[in-house]
Amino acid sequence: MKVLITGGAGFLGTLLGRELLQRKQLLGRAISELVLADLTPPSADLVAREHVRALTGPLLDFCPEVETTGFEAVFHLAGAVSAECESDFELGMRSNLDTTRALLDALKVAGNRPRVVFASSVAVFGGDPGIPLPPVIRDNTLPTPQSSYGIQKFIGEQLVADYTRKGYIDGRSGRLMTVAIRPSPPNGAASGFFSSIVREPLNEMDVVCPVPPEMPVALASPANTVNSLISLAEAPQDALGGRTAINFPALTVTVAEILDALEAVAGKAARERVRFVESPEVTRIVGGWPAAFQSERAARLGLRPDRNMRSIIDRFVCEQDVMRVEA
Amino acid sequence: MKVLITGGAGFLGTLLGRELLQRKQLLGRAISELVLADLTPPSADLVAREHVRALTGPLLDFCPEVETTGFEAVFHLAGAVSAECESDFELGMRSNLDTTRALLDALKVAGNRPRVVFASSVAVFGGDPGIPLPPVIRDNTLPTPQSSYGIQKFIGEQLVADYTRKGYIDGRSGRLMTVAIRPSPPNGAASGFFSSIVREPLNEMDVVCPVPPEMPVALASPANTVNSLISLAEAPQDALGGRTAINFPALTVTVAEILDALEAVAGKAARERVRFVESPEVTRIVGGWPAAFQSERAARLGLRPDRNMRSIIDRFVCEQDVMRVEA
Repeated sequence: MKVLITGGAGFLGTLLGRELLQRKQLLGRAISELVLADLTPPSADLVAREHVRALTGPLLDFCPEVETTGFEAVFHLAGAVSAECESDFELGMRSNLDTTRALLDALKVAGNRPRVVFASSVAVFGGDPGIPLPPVIRDNTLPTPQSSYGIQKFIGEQLVADYTRKGYIDGRSGRLMTVAIRPSPPNGAASGFFSSIVREPLNEMDVVCPVPPEMPVALASPANTVNSLISLAEAPQDALGGRTAINFPALTVTVAEILDALEAVAGKAARERVRFVESPEVTRIVGGWPAAFQSERAARLGLRPDRNMRSIIDRFVCEQDVMRVEA
Repeated sequence: MKVLITGGAGFLGTLLGRELLQRKQLLGRAISELVLADLTPPSADLVAREHVRALTGPLLDFCPEVETTGFEAVFHLAGAVSAECESDFELGMRSNLDTTRALLDALKVAGNRPRVVFASSVAVFGGDPGIPLPPVIRDNTLPTPQSSYGIQKFIGEQLVADYTRKGYIDGRSGRLMTVAIRPSPPNGAASGFFSSIVREPLNEMDVVCPVPPEMPVALASPANTVNSLISLAEAPQDALGGRTAINFPALTVTVAEILDALEAVAGKAARERVRFVESPEVTRIVGGWPAAFQSERAARLGLRPDRNMRSIIDRFVCEQDVMRVEA
């Protein structure tokens, strides 16, 4: 079983790679090769492992290799993030649309109908002025994306569905919720502050929160998200309830509730390091994403949201401590 | 006011061109030039008119001209049709996706934010196994296309919405219903038989109907469809109720009701010329399209369905007679 992770040097790609290496198998078959494709080299601990190979450069350049390698499973996580796509339209179209299309075409040429997981996003949802979002998003809620990133992800879902229907791939799309807490520096996603308002105070740094405290968010921890990606890869097509993208599970919390949990873990001083300076642009983008979901298809696949915000922060603290000891 | 019709040699493009020339204006401004772009030359009566120009060849070749001409209104009707896209995947992707994207990019370069009407299709709807369509399609019903044509049209809608949101164009998408009765030979659309089961018997020819008599369809006459396209072009953006595509008005009838109307107009002998030989492929594609709509946004724009099937056939007979006299 040869596995490809695009965006394999990114935060989620790295976690996914580690998890797959730990499990040693996918779909009941031993992983004989794990290829991490990204613009930058993958994490050193991954490259050091046997059976791990890096493809470093634009994904478009590796399509000929994708055509011939015979990957049996592909996690397509690569892409430009929301704020980048909003400020550089062409970059988003190239990174998210053209590259996804080229990857699917390469897998079609490969001809072995690989299992493909496409990482879509909660950002496909946005309130069209004339078609307001319902208070709770369900599996059949119409996405009306209000950002280029959301549009491009939604288009990617359509391509994956049609390449699957045609039998070129065995694809499925999962819409990632806002992933927090991320340990590394922000990656340009408009939602990055959901991580930094916890991470920076835990590290005794001041931080600005660009949205009001009452803003709710549909959140999933990194571990929960990686688990959803692998579960989605392993589900048989007929268990998915159709080829439409699946909304991944989410915990609904407000910024204030995140800070309550931060205070419970790290004290009042930590919370006081967060200063509110609203950014209308970030508030517009992130505020347009829905925060409450009823995701029956995900539940039928056994996917569950994180228990609560406190457990997410506790786990982050624990992992951060482990990393410090190892460093 | 320079107007471009892509697919300007097609059946609807020709009717739209004639209607615009008769009105002499669009958006209250005189039409100074009408350009008809298509793979084949436009109808002779149109080319003969003053201010009409033909661009004959692949639309992709004319994008440089689109960048510099300064079109103020564009009707984008060009595209490969449903059955073609199903049998030739690459053709559909090139004709419907790449060409639409290239046209939008050319209009973006033009920089004058033209009014753009994108002809989408009822084919964006299809029953995903896990997300069945509701009995009546509403403005916020989630499309889950089950054909490459439907996928490509749905992607086109997303692109038009985002290019509009970014201010590159002033675009809007209308989903055309099944258009009948078409006078000319079938164009490869899976729905072509809805025209031929009336047209051929009226011309004393036998015809095969590839779907069962009880199959319902959401139908609009050619004139009704052209009227919807022009009304959509003339509506100000804030009257559209958002950037999501609008379902055009439709008359819901079954094949049997179409034949009832045929019999009422042309007698029992005409009806007996229709023989039922089911095509599983056509039944699958066309049967997947919904037949009943409640289209509030279209109604708010003043768009109404045809009165009944009889009136559609009467009008077709009348126009066919006019054409015979002129020929």
